[in-house]
Amino acid sequence: MIVPDPMSGDELEARLRQVGAEQYHNLHRFHRRLHAGQCTYEEVQAWALNRYYYQASIPIKDATVLTRMGDAADRRAWRKRIEDHDGLREGDGGIERWLKLTDSLGFPRDYVTSTKGILPATRFAVEAYIAFCRDRSLLEAVASSLTELFSPGIISERVAGMLAHYDFVSKETLAYFTLRPEQAKRDSDFALDFVKRHAATRAEQELVIRALEFKCSVLWAQLDALWCAYVERPIPPGAWVPGTVTAARGAAA
Amino acid sequence: MIVPDPMSGDELEARLRQVGAEQYHNLHRFHRRLHAGQCTYEEVQAWALNRYYYQASIPIKDATVLTRMGDAADRRAWRKRIEDHDGLREGDGGIERWLKLTDSLGFPRDYVTSTKGILPATRFAVEAYIAFCRDRSLLEAVASSLTELFSPGIISERVAGMLAHYDFVSKETLAYFTLRPEQAKRDSDFALDFVKRHAATRAEQELVIRALEFKCSVLWAQLDALWCAYVERPIPPGAWVPGTVTAARGAAA
Repeated sequence: MIVPDPMSGDELEARLRQVGAEQYHNLHRFHRRLHAGQCTYEEVQAWALNRYYYQASIPIKDATVLTRMGDAADRRAWRKRIEDHDGLREGDGGIERWLKLTDSLGFPRDYVTSTKGILPATRFAVEAYIAFCRDRSLLEAVASSLTELFSPGIISERVAGMLAHYDFVSKETLAYFTLRPEQAKRDSDFALDFVKRHAATRAEQELVIRALEFKCSVLWAQLDALWCAYVERPIPPGAWVPGTVTAARGAAA
Repeated sequence: MIVPDPMSGDELEARLRQVGAEQYHNLHRFHRRLHAGQCTYEEVQAWALNRYYYQASIPIKDATVLTRMGDAADRRAWRKRIEDHDGLREGDGGIERWLKLTDSLGFPRDYVTSTKGILPATRFAVEAYIAFCRDRSLLEAVASSLTELFSPGIISERVAGMLAHYDFVSKETLAYFTLRPEQAKRDSDFALDFVKRHAATRAEQELVIRALEFKCSVLWAQLDALWCAYVERPIPPGAWVPGTVTAARGAAA
């Protein structure tokens, strides 16, 4: 059997960027609808509610990765991700900023944080991500974070689109996204450098690419489920039903 | 705090049957479409391909439950589930019979068993089921199997409907379903008795009900994903694309 030579770091990076160009969820029709102002208020509510579970699970995912890092310098770098989401003090951090968004959309905080209204498919996808970072190699766990290579682009598109089209969002309610591009750049620089250094064989490089594809599928599946439930309907049993739970529109803002 | 009294066994059973009446996937529009003969050949193919992963994972799920049973009599009873799916000899068992169905729909076996064409959402839902049986209590793991209380009904509906409406299925290609109602009856009798005996408090009984709701959501999410990808389209990146991989229609039967 012929074992192919490893790619250069630049070639690997190009392959990873190609995965993003073809499979990242900015291409999903739910995002196009969201950013173009075509979502109903209730669809934006459902998006924010479901995505809360993803946001709230990221530090757990990152702590899972941390448990697997043998190198203190790597752990110091990775720890920043947890600090970003959980904050340095109460009232700070990405999760708190996401809750400002769900606040503004009329959801009681204890309902959002209970996650009882999210779609089962959201839960399954997010848990698959955590399980991947626990059960696969550290290299693959780090590689699965590389969707952050593509997130600054989608965030600027999202913030501009949502501010232009929806009177119920503001710079304050979208505060989560203000800090993310810079954090994502720092984090994806680290992760890209890590996979370039640690994927020594062609087989390992292919695992890195598969890991990024997997992560794209985790994000894509969440939008498929949102589309199916809240754009196309019906809503699966047990998931949040628009018009329930929330305060009247505008009352919370 | 007032702790409610436990329900009687009959009351618990009635609550469980109510979950089935409201949330079991026989109510999903994909099944209605499948059984009424409204699915295209390609939709039936996608259903069989994706459900293979569920079928093939059931013995792994059941082995997971087995690892948690301290009682040899319980393990002997539960072991039959693994025997049913894996067979007593090569060429036997439920997984093999499911592959007869995918054979007849033109899929190469190594493509089906690789599971590389399934929807990510199928994988996430099935893995959530295995994780549930590993991470929750044994009582909840057993309770999550109780969808089998409702499967004889859906199977008779399915076989009759598919035989009446699709010229590409036959009694032979649907052989998987021939033995299932009797096996499911035996298994759900055991599981129902188990949860009645072991759920001593009201809190435990509520966990049993939640476990069955969870399992219903695992099945429902798989059909949502099928609908979204193959009825409504588009197909998510990486999943099987109709017209690829398979032999020409009729050639395989």
